[in-house]
Amino acid sequence: MSDHHSVKMTAMNYDKDRPKAENPLKIMDLSLRDGHQSLFATRGRTEDMLPVAGLMDEVGFWAVEVWGGATFDTMHRFLNEDPWERIRTLKRYFKKTPLSMLLRGQNLVGYRNYADDVARAFVERAAENGMDVFRTFDALNDFRNFETVVEVIKKCGKHFQGTICYSMTEPRLGGEVYNVEYFVTKAKELESMGADTICIKDMAGLVAPYDIFNVVKALKESVKPPIHFHSHFTSGLAPMSHLKAVEAGVDILDTCLSPYAYRTSHPAVEPMVMSLLGTNRDTGFDINKLVEITEILEEKVMPKYRQFLNEPTMSVIDINVLLHQTPGGMLSNLFGQLKEMDALDRLNEVYKELPRVRKDLGQIPLVTPTSQIVGVQTVNNVLFDKDGERYARITDQVKDLCYGLYGKTSVPIDSALQKKALAGYPRGETPFTGRPAEILEPELEESKKEIGDLAVDEDDLILYALYPVTGKKFLKWKYGQEEPPASVRAKSLEQAKAELALVAKAKAGKVVEKTDKHEIPEKSESFRTFHVFVDSEYFEVGVDESGDSPVISYIQQAAARLGSAPAQPMAAAPAAPAAPAAQATAAPAAPAPAPEAKTEISVPAAVAPTEGTPLTAPMPGMIVKYLKKVGDTVAEGETVVVLEAMKMENALPAPVAGKIASINFDSGDSVPKDAVLCVVS
Amino acid sequence: MSDHHSVKMTAMNYDKDRPKAENPLKIMDLSLRDGHQSLFATRGRTEDMLPVAGLMDEVGFWAVEVWGGATFDTMHRFLNEDPWERIRTLKRYFKKTPLSMLLRGQNLVGYRNYADDVARAFVERAAENGMDVFRTFDALNDFRNFETVVEVIKKCGKHFQGTICYSMTEPRLGGEVYNVEYFVTKAKELESMGADTICIKDMAGLVAPYDIFNVVKALKESVKPPIHFHSHFTSGLAPMSHLKAVEAGVDILDTCLSPYAYRTSHPAVEPMVMSLLGTNRDTGFDINKLVEITEILEEKVMPKYRQFLNEPTMSVIDINVLLHQTPGGMLSNLFGQLKEMDALDRLNEVYKELPRVRKDLGQIPLVTPTSQIVGVQTVNNVLFDKDGERYARITDQVKDLCYGLYGKTSVPIDSALQKKALAGYPRGETPFTGRPAEILEPELEESKKEIGDLAVDEDDLILYALYPVTGKKFLKWKYGQEEPPASVRAKSLEQAKAELALVAKAKAGKVVEKTDKHEIPEKSESFRTFHVFVDSEYFEVGVDESGDSPVISYIQQAAARLGSAPAQPMAAAPAAPAAPAAQATAAPAAPAPAPEAKTEISVPAAVAPTEGTPLTAPMPGMIVKYLKKVGDTVAEGETVVVLEAMKMENALPAPVAGKIASINFDSGDSVPKDAVLCVVS
Repeated sequence: MSDHHSVKMTAMNYDKDRPKAENPLKIMDLSLRDGHQSLFATRGRTEDMLPVAGLMDEVGFWAVEVWGGATFDTMHRFLNEDPWERIRTLKRYFKKTPLSMLLRGQNLVGYRNYADDVARAFVERAAENGMDVFRTFDALNDFRNFETVVEVIKKCGKHFQGTICYSMTEPRLGGEVYNVEYFVTKAKELESMGADTICIKDMAGLVAPYDIFNVVKALKESVKPPIHFHSHFTSGLAPMSHLKAVEAGVDILDTCLSPYAYRTSHPAVEPMVMSLLGTNRDTGFDINKLVEITEILEEKVMPKYRQFLNEPTMSVIDINVLLHQTPGGMLSNLFGQLKEMDALDRLNEVYKELPRVRKDLGQIPLVTPTSQIVGVQTVNNVLFDKDGERYARITDQVKDLCYGLYGKTSVPIDSALQKKALAGYPRGETPFTGRPAEILEPELEESKKEIGDLAVDEDDLILYALYPVTGKKFLKWKYGQEEPPASVRAKSLEQAKAELALVAKAKAGKVVEKTDKHEIPEKSESFRTFHVFVDSEYFEVGVDESGDSPVISYIQQAAARLGSAPAQPMAAAPAAPAAPAAQATAAPAAPAPAPEAKTEISVPAAVAPTEGTPLTAPMPGMIVKYLKKVGDTVAEGETVVVLEAMKMENALPAPVAGKIASINFDSGDSVPKDAVLCVVS
Repeated sequence: MSDHHSVKMTAMNYDKDRPKAENPLKIMDLSLRDGHQSLFATRGRTEDMLPVAGLMDEVGFWAVEVWGGATFDTMHRFLNEDPWERIRTLKRYFKKTPLSMLLRGQNLVGYRNYADDVARAFVERAAENGMDVFRTFDALNDFRNFETVVEVIKKCGKHFQGTICYSMTEPRLGGEVYNVEYFVTKAKELESMGADTICIKDMAGLVAPYDIFNVVKALKESVKPPIHFHSHFTSGLAPMSHLKAVEAGVDILDTCLSPYAYRTSHPAVEPMVMSLLGTNRDTGFDINKLVEITEILEEKVMPKYRQFLNEPTMSVIDINVLLHQTPGGMLSNLFGQLKEMDALDRLNEVYKELPRVRKDLGQIPLVTPTSQIVGVQTVNNVLFDKDGERYARITDQVKDLCYGLYGKTSVPIDSALQKKALAGYPRGETPFTGRPAEILEPELEESKKEIGDLAVDEDDLILYALYPVTGKKFLKWKYGQEEPPASVRAKSLEQAKAELALVAKAKAGKVVEKTDKHEIPEKSESFRTFHVFVDSEYFEVGVDESGDSPVISYIQQAAARLGSAPAQPMAAAPAAPAAPAAQATAAPAAPAPAPEAKTEISVPAAVAPTEGTPLTAPMPGMIVKYLKKVGDTVAEGETVVVLEAMKMENALPAPVAGKIASINFDSGDSVPKDAVLCVVS
């Protein structure tokens, strides 16, 4: 048997009680956080984790990642779930296996740097609620953004995993910035901060097998803490990179259970377990237990989530991420943003502009939120730069980045851009070089005043401090002050299976399209009902004369087959006129044009008022807040309203100087592109 | 840089015109054969290969596999395509790249051993039509089954790739049968037969990375011909096994373009190209050209095929193949067979029985047709063995295997089983040990007599000789003697996209189910047509009075939106009665029961006749032929009819002795499970 670096064959024993390997590879399972975040828009519900949580606890995972990242946001916003409750619930099931979370450094589980008091309180409460491992990263790899949280993690006696975001400027590892030395230097910084383990986080799935081999080998030779490797399958490289990381001596790998694996998620755990069987790196896992878990997931959980799977292509990999060295999520955001703005034809310009913007902004790694910052600015440049002017519309986030609010960039920011961005910047025109959170005022007291009694405990208060708009909405649901909308309700397995059955029927061509619903008119005294049999279907047809043209409602009996209530009204169906004989023609005439479909947007969209200049939404988003009220005077370019879109807050400026004549929305409202947010007259 | 066995970093040059690597890894692309065979039930049409064939020719593939395997069968049976024509057409596009085919040894492109005259003629015509590389395998790895074809391949000056089927009896490489020595011995046999290259064919995706490393390394040390490795992604091991094969010095790898890759197909080419960039094994491929090809495929071809993708689970891997050491196709066949027989609850018994049957049958590799032979016999044992009797119902194929008709098994067949199987076997009760095809009488002359003038040339004749039933049907289509059914017609991209749009709408809950069509009555003189506008849709409604209840037909204009012809009639819709006022009721009455859905089976199914004993189909299949006609006398157990199901011919015995009272089908008819095939009285 040849030497595969650290991997050696020992004995061929596949029994679940086989002797422990000399240096077993440790595995962290990501199914319940990054798995559903990658595949199902982070829509995983706690109730769908419980059927397998107890079994997962028996596998022997080093830890299970179940919290942090986008879960906190999604849970309270879309699922009507208290994020804190999830930790406490899962802790009752994972009795042996540590719980892990993804902590975005000083960004915590949000998209901006929070003040130190919020950061301290957040980590304390996470630890207190049951979190064990804090995987901590910063989008700029500026570890000054770790200082506050690490102090609390350590004080709580928890595990601090220091994370280095993997990034590239070349088609492969190397070049001036992200070379082996970069990762070694960063790892040494983390070691000196007291990192219990060190993670290479390849969030975009960019790292190639022989590159990660070199990085891991160098890290193993340079630092003492165990090395953990995290890579996404996105480009298809990850299974090979995993194996080479193991051969280089990596201590811990991130994988998912197979139903949560592949595509933009992670390689599955099962092939790695089978690959290392009988070697000195044998995981020791019982493959049959993994099969048992995945069978439950496939049967009881996956039918509820398949609808969230975004499958624009047949291919389950996206090689474009390698060609553009960008995360897949960022590419689809760019794609979505251009589509919303009817500018998909400019995608290639965006691809070309992106590395230029990134370079101007100091070759920062691309990960939430820097991927959004670079992405939105890139689109702005492509759409709004003209007459040779670069950076015609600079986002507030880019201004903040230029000021130093996110931290230190990998190389200095282009000085001309920095100067332009900071012209008139409220905090000053000279960049700040200290630890970003140093200049942030404490926030918790102010939040407490704002939210008042609606925050019953500190967990509520932190939720509000992190997400003032959606957090407040959630607390109103939680304490019965508002009825949660139907959209946040869980779907039953039966519902989900019925929906999938309908999709299967659609594949077999056995469905017809519904048309848009109209409002149903009141029935008059002359309303009549008929039993009509068409083909094999029975219809109850209601006919009501309304002027010249009869209004007809009907009940389609066949709907009962889908498990709906027997008498459910259906939206789409033809009907005959009330007195056909009177209008009979001998042969079909040329079809009349169909009336225009009714728009689904129920708010004033793209409709300018009689007087004044409208401020319209440049993209779909959620209103965070209005900074002005009706009657206020505004200068041209002064921020009137903050719109959250693509995970970022966009400050929208007054189009002209004048007075606010009208305001059309409230904080928390979702608005379509081109909605008139307010009018200045 | 560490040594990864044969892989070494050289220069970091990613330009498409970069200097050639020292020992470039060669790649055979499988997209146009095993790719669509694995993912799309082999339904790929020649017309859908042409948009990329010219570009693929530029990539620099060692060869492209485009023919053989199941393509020959599927093309003439389901696609109304002449298999021979495909070679000639593709040859015009692939001007530089050799064409490769999968040849099942003496089974050619069918499921049984053909006589030497057929084998010789087949290979000659394939070579003459343009085939370059003949990947030749035998399900038993009995290379005597290569002798006839290899002689012709060599005579035609073509490339003979000798193939060894990878198989296991343990959870990993090793044990008494399939160990490293086995593969070395087999490779030496192939070398001495004049193999130009030697392929390890891991058709089930079972081989683990460190196992293939050992096998390839041993082969490189033992034989001279270049080593080619073929593995399926099915279990998720293949990307890692590919990389370790490269490190062990493999010469050629099999991959697919990413839209045809993964799931039960093969790893994609793109990640391997990117992994080896800048090493001494650099493929030299231009990644941007690969992206160009995949974009065309995703845009123009994939929409037509997504419907064929079988996605029973969320997971794109199936770890069960490792646990049971069986090909995924075999597992789904077993699953399907049990389901058809309402015996899915016995799946675990089947899993347990399968290795016992395989061991009894000489630990043969599991690949077409041996996987079907072992699979069907296993199901028979589980369903029909009772009172301690094993092998109560032995299939004809197992009898043939026991006799030696397939060749020599890896270890001897269980002698008790062999004796039982050969009791009364027509060729004799003593097993035959020579080259299987030796005892087969020439077939071509007989075929020629049977098919007569319908076979215009030798290609037609061979097609008929290989597939008498479906081949004859195809030749009738080809020469205008019969109208091909709608089911074999190609689908346009527009149709396919409209269907996918409907599926997307189903996912969004915007469809309703169609009901089954009724027969449409003749229109009377009183037929009237009306223009009706309902919601946003225009309908042309035809009304015809028929007794009390009006018959209404209508044309839904909205159908035009789906890209259908404007006046296409739709199957399911309600309509109002002709004279509603006369039948008016004040309020909806209780719905009447819907009429029973019409069965889709238009043949007598499960209906016993008044007199006699029916012989029913034990599974759905196609009638190959009746051996008896009405009036013939049969003994109990005598074969009456041959039914093709699961790629195998099943001889169905008379249930009782008597006379054939009726025969309900013809050769070529498809029949459902429990169809009454004939009645014995």
